[in-house]
Amino acid sequence: MVKVDVLIIGGSAAGLVAALTAKGEHPSKRVMMIRKESKVMIPCGIPYIFGSLENSDQNILPDAGLVNLGVEIIMDEVISIDTHLQTVKTARSMDVTYDRLILATGSLPNKPAWLKGKDLENVFVIPKNKDYLDHFSSLLSQFEHIIVVGGGFIGVEVSDELNKIGKKVTLIEKEPHILGLAFDEEIALDAEQLLISRGVKVINGVGLQSIQGDKKVEGVELCDGRMIEADAVILSMGYVPNNELAKASEIPLNEKGFIVVDEYMRTPIMNVFAAGDCAEKRDFSTKKISTTMLASTACAEARVAAMNLFHLSTIRRFSGTIGIYATNLGDTSYGVAGLTESVALKEGFDIICGKFQGIDRHPGKLSNAHKQMVKLVVAKESGRILGGLVIGGLSTGELTNVIGIAIQTGMTIYDLLTAQIGTHPRITASPAAYPLIKAAESIYHII
Amino acid sequence: MVKVDVLIIGGSAAGLVAALTAKGEHPSKRVMMIRKESKVMIPCGIPYIFGSLENSDQNILPDAGLVNLGVEIIMDEVISIDTHLQTVKTARSMDVTYDRLILATGSLPNKPAWLKGKDLENVFVIPKNKDYLDHFSSLLSQFEHIIVVGGGFIGVEVSDELNKIGKKVTLIEKEPHILGLAFDEEIALDAEQLLISRGVKVINGVGLQSIQGDKKVEGVELCDGRMIEADAVILSMGYVPNNELAKASEIPLNEKGFIVVDEYMRTPIMNVFAAGDCAEKRDFSTKKISTTMLASTACAEARVAAMNLFHLSTIRRFSGTIGIYATNLGDTSYGVAGLTESVALKEGFDIICGKFQGIDRHPGKLSNAHKQMVKLVVAKESGRILGGLVIGGLSTGELTNVIGIAIQTGMTIYDLLTAQIGTHPRITASPAAYPLIKAAESIYHII
Repeated sequence: MVKVDVLIIGGSAAGLVAALTAKGEHPSKRVMMIRKESKVMIPCGIPYIFGSLENSDQNILPDAGLVNLGVEIIMDEVISIDTHLQTVKTARSMDVTYDRLILATGSLPNKPAWLKGKDLENVFVIPKNKDYLDHFSSLLSQFEHIIVVGGGFIGVEVSDELNKIGKKVTLIEKEPHILGLAFDEEIALDAEQLLISRGVKVINGVGLQSIQGDKKVEGVELCDGRMIEADAVILSMGYVPNNELAKASEIPLNEKGFIVVDEYMRTPIMNVFAAGDCAEKRDFSTKKISTTMLASTACAEARVAAMNLFHLSTIRRFSGTIGIYATNLGDTSYGVAGLTESVALKEGFDIICGKFQGIDRHPGKLSNAHKQMVKLVVAKESGRILGGLVIGGLSTGELTNVIGIAIQTGMTIYDLLTAQIGTHPRITASPAAYPLIKAAESIYHII
Repeated sequence: MVKVDVLIIGGSAAGLVAALTAKGEHPSKRVMMIRKESKVMIPCGIPYIFGSLENSDQNILPDAGLVNLGVEIIMDEVISIDTHLQTVKTARSMDVTYDRLILATGSLPNKPAWLKGKDLENVFVIPKNKDYLDHFSSLLSQFEHIIVVGGGFIGVEVSDELNKIGKKVTLIEKEPHILGLAFDEEIALDAEQLLISRGVKVINGVGLQSIQGDKKVEGVELCDGRMIEADAVILSMGYVPNNELAKASEIPLNEKGFIVVDEYMRTPIMNVFAAGDCAEKRDFSTKKISTTMLASTACAEARVAAMNLFHLSTIRRFSGTIGIYATNLGDTSYGVAGLTESVALKEGFDIICGKFQGIDRHPGKLSNAHKQMVKLVVAKESGRILGGLVIGGLSTGELTNVIGIAIQTGMTIYDLLTAQIGTHPRITASPAAYPLIKAAESIYHII
């Protein structure tokens, strides 16, 4: 029987950060990570292994940080947990006793049970599994026309990458626009038009009826009866928490299948924590159960879990998922932090929105200038920033993070109006026309 | 006698934003701007008119926003103010009565009185004056070797631009390193080495004794006796507040020559406000008088001044200059927000610093990846972030703004450790190795 202080199950973003944080904070404790994969894929980098990168080996989460710190990495699979004895058993018959356990089992691609043809040859999903993805990559040369089902971030990014390497790509999205759940319509539309201009065929507003074919994929049937021929189908229809182990171990799940956790990332079971895609999330503003899965959120949760293992701290709590993310198509990026206008309205907030479009250089004549648009979603009664959306160039990710920090710290538009920002001709908008502050100003004038 | 509600003297960053904000907030008020220039230069863009831009016409602050809003722009010069009668007189004999006055007269290049040879032909400064700069540009083809005196942002950026168009450039800085007042030594050194590798000759740690020549510049003498030949000398030895009009009008100045203002940007004289380079500044953390002049700070001050013209608001105050800025050399940018380590120590803060170097893409194999380093300066007793420095690629400006907002909102490293940030492979660092949070973590482990 191996005895460890901290056992982490799973080695992706949450597992990695949980291990680094636990061992970093408690160097004398024995910290072990058990994971299935010998090489772990960088989750957000997966779409890029098909085009921008040469292969999946260029998209590996390095183990050096863990190894240097003294975290033990075991390639194995935990098959059962006894939460009373605080032990686990692995597929390779290892028994481990833990003092504290962190579940970071992640998520699995959604392959809906109702979908006819889902198990035909050449139907794929995008899991965080190197062997599976390498197998798919090795088959790519056989496919001319590929249908991608689901226009979320993964679907859009995979479509763009496959298009880039010369595939004929059709993206099918049942919502009126791709990225329509992540962004407000005008921003989703901007991204959609860009994706189309880059060569991806987009079919919107209609769901998938079935996948057609005898043994192999021959095409798909849409809900409106249209048939589309294809050599392969990629299902990017969302992800579901990987909860089998937790379920079998009687660790409570919420109604969406996520492991129940509190703000310290503790499950209701003594000494068992969870973090990342498998762990319950609540929205920062609505306080409702959230299904948003992001590597960045996973890392924040993992840090919180690991910092509360042996003593709780009220200043190291997780206050709810804000949902800060971005995507990129060529030179253009799209970012969002917090609530979109449509979600805020649906949830019943009394809001006011403001928007400003400028340019991310000053003067705009400087090379590589890109339009930069910021939209703010603000609570009317308090002026508090609930959300923000950005269209821009390569600084979009960090500008979205400025908004994310503003949301987290409870800033209002009044704070933004008097806020100091830094600018430089080559790398930011002008201080006199900084879209974030101008968007706040546009609200201030009507609030 | 012309009668206006709001009169703004000066048309650069502060004047522009003051006018836009005043008229935006009070559409029915008559808002007039009196400025000397027919075309106003974008101040931070000036170094780029010599190389990256074709000419100064590509670096103009547009008047369209002002005109569309209904601000009256008068090209003239105010030569006196009667603060009792609330009137001004202009060079072209216009008399204007104001209800509220905003002084936004900016700053002028420092040309030290002690400097022998400062008035020789081919000695230049970098004022915000299009005609002067155009004249200098027209002479550039005559110069082979140019000496730039002063390695602050303007000196460094001008040196790099002149080097880019094939000039032999020598930059002289009396501090041990260029940018040494803005950045801590290791970051200044990184920038210095990059500037040298790009072809600029840098002479450090020695001041300028005199400029040599009969009628025209022939060279300079350094304080250590060295003589350097040159065809032209550019003095970038800082800027001084343009306070002549205020002084003549008995509007109080502080000991550094800035117009005295309170947190609402009011001068001690009834109904007279000031904003931008000419207005007094206090450091956000040290609360000392500051001489930092930034267009971005000027814009924030101008917004505050204009929002407090007719009624004061405690939520629209200016809480002190944080000093958030960045510079750029090729693909590399350097940013700073708040206190550097050396300034914090000099001022007597009990601090602890943390640093993390990562990469601004994930995986790092993605194209255009750039190293990204964040250094945090943190108050030991509270964990509060006093400052941050960044080396990185094109997202450096906005990442520096993330730190700037963290300082303004009083975030601590504990807040950062549990903070949510958004990431994307192509435009940010990895969530598991996001340098800002890892830098906070490195402090947390030793605090």
